[in-house]
Amino acid sequence: MRSDDYFSLKFEGGGLVYIDQTRLPASEHFIHTEDYKRVAESIKRLEIRGAPLIGVAAAYALALSQKQGYSKKHFYKVADTLASTRPTAVNLFNALSRMKKLHDDLPPAERSYEVFLNEAIAIHREDEEMCEAIAANWSKIFKANSVVLTHCNTGKLATGGIGTAFGVIRRGFEAGKVSFVYADETRPLFQGLRLTSYELGKTGIPFKVITESTAGVLIRDGKIDVVITGADRIASNGDSANKLGTFTLSVLCKAYGVPFYIAAPSTT
Amino acid sequence: MRSDDYFSLKFEGGGLVYIDQTRLPASEHFIHTEDYKRVAESIKRLEIRGAPLIGVAAAYALALSQKQGYSKKHFYKVADTLASTRPTAVNLFNALSRMKKLHDDLPPAERSYEVFLNEAIAIHREDEEMCEAIAANWSKIFKANSVVLTHCNTGKLATGGIGTAFGVIRRGFEAGKVSFVYADETRPLFQGLRLTSYELGKTGIPFKVITESTAGVLIRDGKIDVVITGADRIASNGDSANKLGTFTLSVLCKAYGVPFYIAAPSTT
Repeated sequence: MRSDDYFSLKFEGGGLVYIDQTRLPASEHFIHTEDYKRVAESIKRLEIRGAPLIGVAAAYALALSQKQGYSKKHFYKVADTLASTRPTAVNLFNALSRMKKLHDDLPPAERSYEVFLNEAIAIHREDEEMCEAIAANWSKIFKANSVVLTHCNTGKLATGGIGTAFGVIRRGFEAGKVSFVYADETRPLFQGLRLTSYELGKTGIPFKVITESTAGVLIRDGKIDVVITGADRIASNGDSANKLGTFTLSVLCKAYGVPFYIAAPSTT
Repeated sequence: MRSDDYFSLKFEGGGLVYIDQTRLPASEHFIHTEDYKRVAESIKRLEIRGAPLIGVAAAYALALSQKQGYSKKHFYKVADTLASTRPTAVNLFNALSRMKKLHDDLPPAERSYEVFLNEAIAIHREDEEMCEAIAANWSKIFKANSVVLTHCNTGKLATGGIGTAFGVIRRGFEAGKVSFVYADETRPLFQGLRLTSYELGKTGIPFKVITESTAGVLIRDGKIDVVITGADRIASNGDSANKLGTFTLSVLCKAYGVPFYIAAPSTT
């Protein structure tokens, strides 16, 4: 069923509410918690995933750990616990560093759950705005009736907003420029098959999930107008590190002259 | 457990014995039958797969259909039934055509189960010899300690002998020239993950199964000395048609200067 009301994570009623991504697309199961340990567990178990979304969730979790009263020692212990959940997610460390910097800069008397929560909300909002800023580039990328290939999951389930590559596709679709999306199933964890398919369905974009080898044949046969993926990191020289499979796509695009875009925020 | 006694299909005790490939590698379940209908069903269900092996199995099945007495009408009906099991397998039609030609060329009085069975055995033996002839090329392909990447399944489970690409790898390994094999898992049916891994284990060749996107990174990083795959068809101009994924490998090999071989018989 198409519904744009879908979300991955929100702060509501004094706690976090988020969809268990390990159960998608079979079931839409939401976890409600005020317990930072439960959030840490969710990041470890991939119930929450996607580098930007992990950062947002960790910031909220750190704030929630102070809800029953501020404790400097506890604050630092929780920050360490959260930092250990996904050592490869740079957004996680960025978000925790920002929370710690706020903590350290404040006079002790002003350190409170409310202040930490406001900072987490700000981190979440900025991620949303960053997604919109990236998505605004759709007009430079898509011509009429573009058929797009994407890899992994880069939408609401991966970020605090509408997504990076997925957000670009989404805005392009809403503007009538994207007619069809091929989503790589994305081995080994099937983020495309399980998660991007869910988001494409929810957003009402016509799509098909393909194996990664199918992408090679589609690109060769001129069936793809644009490839757009996200990135886990972009180095200062422009090199990017991303999900396994992105590299093969870039080689195929180069061999066949298909435009290849990486949509990512400068924070990576 | 390493055992070179493994086999995919043999004629024994008046009937066919073959391993149910849909249950591999979890269980080694053998089907014993003298019933051509059971063989036809096995080809449809992919219990028997691999173009050359399908051809061999179909020839035996057609012979077995005449075991209770020769009937021209029944012979042709069974040939049609078998031809409908896997319309894309050229070896299937070659084997059936050969059986039908033998039938038509014989005086009616000489048409018998034994004659048909001998022809099926000859088809099987020729496939074995074809595999050995292909495998004999190993010395042109491998240098010392070659690390090889292969795709799909091309061994005993796919042919009447030691295989095409797999046979080359096997003989190269026995000669001490192949030190390690990466096997693409081969989406969507996982022939590499399920079947090639089984054969590599049985043959005692050190190996790892990888996702297809991992292949791109290994090739880029110079970790692969040779890529060798099979082919479903080779056109007279040298173009080959093969399992999804082979094409992407060929683009990657070209981009990074890695030798890429297709091992296939002229009958394709």
